[in-house]
Amino acid sequence: MRTPSAIAIAALLRVSVAPLGAQDTVRFKPTVAQPTFAVRPPVLRVKPKTVLVSNTNFGAYYTEQGGPFPGEVGPIYVEGATTKDVLVVKVRRVRPNHHIAAAQLYADFGGLTTEDRVRMLNDPITPRRYVWRLDRERNTATTTLPDSRMKSVTIDLQPMLGRVAVAPRGQEAFSGIWPGDFGGNMDAPEVREGTTVYLPIFHDGAYFYFGDGHARQGQGEVAGTGLETSMDVVLELDVIKGKAIDWPRLEDENYIMVVGAARPLMDAFRLAHVELVEWLVEEYGFGKLDAYALLGQVGESTVGNVVDPLYTVVAKFPKRYLPK
Amino acid sequence: MRTPSAIAIAALLRVSVAPLGAQDTVRFKPTVAQPTFAVRPPVLRVKPKTVLVSNTNFGAYYTEQGGPFPGEVGPIYVEGATTKDVLVVKVRRVRPNHHIAAAQLYADFGGLTTEDRVRMLNDPITPRRYVWRLDRERNTATTTLPDSRMKSVTIDLQPMLGRVAVAPRGQEAFSGIWPGDFGGNMDAPEVREGTTVYLPIFHDGAYFYFGDGHARQGQGEVAGTGLETSMDVVLELDVIKGKAIDWPRLEDENYIMVVGAARPLMDAFRLAHVELVEWLVEEYGFGKLDAYALLGQVGESTVGNVVDPLYTVVAKFPKRYLPK
Amino acid sequence: MRTPSAIAIAALLRVSVAPLGAQDTVRFKPTVAQPTFAVRPPVLRVKPKTVLVSNTNFGAYYTEQGGPFPGEVGPIYVEGATTKDVLVVKVRRVRPNHHIAAAQLYADFGGLTTEDRVRMLNDPITPRRYVWRLDRERNTATTTLPDSRMKSVTIDLQPMLGRVAVAPRGQEAFSGIWPGDFGGNMDAPEVREGTTVYLPIFHDGAYFYFGDGHARQGQGEVAGTGLETSMDVVLELDVIKGKAIDWPRLEDENYIMVVGAARPLMDAFRLAHVELVEWLVEEYGFGKLDAYALLGQVGESTVGNVVDPLYTVVAKFPKRYLPK
Amino acid sequence: MRTPSAIAIAALLRVSVAPLGAQDTVRFKPTVAQPTFAVRPPVLRVKPKTVLVSNTNFGAYYTEQGGPFPGEVGPIYVEGATTKDVLVVKVRRVRPNHHIAAAQLYADFGGLTTEDRVRMLNDPITPRRYVWRLDRERNTATTTLPDSRMKSVTIDLQPMLGRVAVAPRGQEAFSGIWPGDFGGNMDAPEVREGTTVYLPIFHDGAYFYFGDGHARQGQGEVAGTGLETSMDVVLELDVIKGKAIDWPRLEDENYIMVVGAARPLMDAFRLAHVELVEWLVEEYGFGKLDAYALLGQVGESTVGNVVDPLYTVVAKFPKRYLPK
Repeated sequence: MRTPSAIAIAALLRVSVAPLGAQDTVRFKPTVAQPTFAVRPPVLRVKPKTVLVSNTNFGAYYTEQGGPFPGEVGPIYVEGATTKDVLVVKVRRVRPNHHIAAAQLYADFGGLTTEDRVRMLNDPITPRRYVWRLDRERNTATTTLPDSRMKSVTIDLQPMLGRVAVAPRGQEAFSGIWPGDFGGNMDAPEVREGTTVYLPIFHDGAYFYFGDGHARQGQGEVAGTGLETSMDVVLELDVIKGKAIDWPRLEDENYIMVVGAARPLMDAFRLAHVELVEWLVEEYGFGKLDAYALLGQVGESTVGNVVDPLYTVVAKFPKRYLPK
Repeated sequence: MRTPSAIAIAALLRVSVAPLGAQDTVRFKPTVAQPTFAVRPPVLRVKPKTVLVSNTNFGAYYTEQGGPFPGEVGPIYVEGATTKDVLVVKVRRVRPNHHIAAAQLYADFGGLTTEDRVRMLNDPITPRRYVWRLDRERNTATTTLPDSRMKSVTIDLQPMLGRVAVAPRGQEAFSGIWPGDFGGNMDAPEVREGTTVYLPIFHDGAYFYFGDGHARQGQGEVAGTGLETSMDVVLELDVIKGKAIDWPRLEDENYIMVVGAARPLMDAFRLAHVELVEWLVEEYGFGKLDAYALLGQVGESTVGNVVDPLYTVVAKFPKRYLPK
Repeated sequence: MRTPSAIAIAALLRVSVAPLGAQDTVRFKPTVAQPTFAVRPPVLRVKPKTVLVSNTNFGAYYTEQGGPFPGEVGPIYVEGATTKDVLVVKVRRVRPNHHIAAAQLYADFGGLTTEDRVRMLNDPITPRRYVWRLDRERNTATTTLPDSRMKSVTIDLQPMLGRVAVAPRGQEAFSGIWPGDFGGNMDAPEVREGTTVYLPIFHDGAYFYFGDGHARQGQGEVAGTGLETSMDVVLELDVIKGKAIDWPRLEDENYIMVVGAARPLMDAFRLAHVELVEWLVEEYGFGKLDAYALLGQVGESTVGNVVDPLYTVVAKFPKRYLPK
Repeated sequence: MRTPSAIAIAALLRVSVAPLGAQDTVRFKPTVAQPTFAVRPPVLRVKPKTVLVSNTNFGAYYTEQGGPFPGEVGPIYVEGATTKDVLVVKVRRVRPNHHIAAAQLYADFGGLTTEDRVRMLNDPITPRRYVWRLDRERNTATTTLPDSRMKSVTIDLQPMLGRVAVAPRGQEAFSGIWPGDFGGNMDAPEVREGTTVYLPIFHDGAYFYFGDGHARQGQGEVAGTGLETSMDVVLELDVIKGKAIDWPRLEDENYIMVVGAARPLMDAFRLAHVELVEWLVEEYGFGKLDAYALLGQVGESTVGNVVDPLYTVVAKFPKRYLPK
């Protein structure tokens, strides 16, 4: 994979946009970072079928020295999107645009330790920060392992977006750390190039947000963060009229998927799978028990995160077993 | 994949056994089906480095008409295996030897419905049984979907063993449905050809059991069962002296893995991942926090089952990131 | 218990306010109902040591016909309260001021059924609404039981406030259904006359809210609601300067208590108990292990709710075993 | 409360047995301690309506020095008890017969710390043992609190039996630490003098076991143990013919109760409450939704333990609201 650059992206877009014809390409440079997913004055208005060329917000968190995590980009008002529709976000491109990614072990946040919602009498672990050098030519990240025989490790990049969201229902405002039925901080590795995200809409205009680039993230994001860094993104925004979904859905070349967000983990697992059964029933003509029985034999799943206020599970059904 | 047959297996064994030299090949035809994992008089005694050519028990459950689930094969006493050692079970071969696999939806057992341990006031679902035809030439299974637009479905086989176990600690006896630190009904798809299973030993001789062939099983085995059928198996049994592990470990070409069994699901997830961190620390020279941090970026996992008395999670670390 | 009335309350206050001297009594008639706990322009400003004579909002939910649930009263800005302090809310009086209480069984909300966060494939239950007649003279509530041999039932009232809250941290806004470290919809029966509630403060002024009167509520509020009705309240608001707590604390004649809010239930249980141990350590001079060991023998607990987005548990330590 | 003694017990029995007429009084001195709940040769056979005067096993655990925990008393074969019946165990007397009770904090067992089934990367706590002096005249227990300002603490006794059980279904054998539908280590404070325990029967003869006296235990038994000591017991054993229950039920002067055992805690909570609803429906003529709705207003519950392999919850319905 080559290093992304303005020229490369332009080249890419020239090719990929061409066949779509009716699409608008909008280049947007964010200047505001939002602390919550909520209804607020939009930073941009777009029409359906817009190709958005943009980037996530940069923050001190991504520097050698560390510092605050940046807020989200948005909200972007999608014209004509109503609460009876579904927002479509096709992830065409998500690539690190910075030479460092940071990952932090926390005393009160993480999936294999006590945390501020999973309190125990044990002493907390000692926080530690890992700075990873990104080599975008080679598509790798390298960090030192101070206590290990293997003094450093180099791993491949698998860039993704931790957060794509609409404004949550009513007047609620959830900080960027929250996932939910509005999407948000799903931390699902499947939100990567080639994946389409479908989000329910709770307010006319949808109020779309994105952010939280991960150059890579393990399943479960067990240590609390991915390789956090800033990203160039190309997102295709569209609307499916007259359709309602309850939870975020994903689709790529091989799978249709649902993201459930809940604690305990089993409730996230159930949410995602039950909604996937309902998808199979509604759109693919399966009987409910048949869909359940078949999912029992061909279903797959990814644990997205076990660290955020709600855990996430991605339930997957292989497209090859859908009716033709 | 060709249809397995006695001749094919013999041919396979000639080839694969040859290089090992010191191995004994033992052909064992089970005649007893056990209802529990427990210490009881062995049905067979083998030496370490034995290649066991055998099969799982057949049961009426696997027939068109249905009926009771068969019990486990075992216990097999492994000579020289002590509670200070680890039992090694290399799965060389696991292939259906029957033309039908059965899968049952239950009113009181299943991962997406109420069950006898997850009680609700909702009415239970209606039980239904699916008989799958196995085509061992084509490596497929086909069943009818009575309520679906797609009237039948054909899926690829991915044969595995639901249960490999040692006798649990003390005088406890768990029915075949239980997984635990003794292995048991882990229902992990990774227990397939090419995978090595490491089990702790709680009694001298280990008292090894196996059974519960699945021609295929979805992750989580959400509908309660896999494609249940009988299997021909070739298992290589060995002992690692002077080593102790707390939970079952797996290894294949690409991953080292730990199976955690617990309810709630998150505790199974934590068990598997914490033990995997400890494995990285003990055998590969990682510092504990370094291993945790790295697992956060490269860890993967499979939900084995969410239906048994204890759920199972397989935590995986890619071998390519281990020290050379 | 006599029916509360303006005269009775005035009489009560004359007596009880007298000894405190420096207290202000503020009579406040709410006119606005808020949909979320959040920072917003205050509806009232009070000084510490204020006795607030007020009532919860009335809503159509409390009528025979039913309708929307009313929002919360607030926010009340407490002058001088800072994020380094604790808000004190002494519940002097909470009495139904209406002749009906309503309780609703929902298809997607409740502790013993599937709900929108605990999804299953089972069919949902049929919703049903119970209207309870309150007899404030006799302190009882009566409802019909349409399917039961016992055609109606009469139970004693145990009035309480489901919700007392401060504005949550940052810019978050949680709808009235949420409990949390900010208090909120704790649905703890212990928030009744005679109990003092201590709340952390996340914004200068605290931004105090209250609402959600229950004429009675079972432990766990398992069926989704209490006997929902409107209440006359007398709350004494005060501030403890220079003290920080992480979770709501309660105190009555017999117990010091902590309210933990989380899903799963066990995390709420742990939160409440761990924070209670820390309270014993910080204020009563116990060693951490000593406090843990003693709590193991004398601890009590109440499950507040198992229906809200976060469940609540009240951990209790008997005052008789505190150092004198 | 006076110190129990052989004479006192004899006196007590003379009085209380008298009115029952047909009852046999059997004095049984256990000599065997069993490691599991399982079918095995009975140590005693009794008829229904037997008053059993006995004691729990003594073990080194109860001494100043500490040592192994004693096993259970049993199995006692109850003649005429079949799998279609219910075993009735009326607890007439449970009193410490020893001057010490022991309580141990463990590194890998406990409700507010990591444990061997709830693994984390945090360091474990330091184990510590508390020896409590029992004053049976004053009905108190006293221990030192080495790290606390309050150098020692004295608390009232509330004697109970942690374990009453039948043999579990099939050929399973659970160690004494397990609760389940067979009763077992329920660790419910309600199993005290005056309470009647109803147990399902899985094998003709029931195979009754008891043990694990607690001079007192906090709700949840959060620190891992109660005040463990040996007990004199008087248990009245009887059978209800032709009745089936799924989970242990309790009854005392004020409540009918069900004990649910499961992990996660919420599943134990649901089990107990759903079974309680079913009890109300079957025996008291409530409609299911009516029972649910009423339980939502008058239900109470106790968390029995959050430390054993399965947690326990006691769901309670006040008898005063039952039909007369």
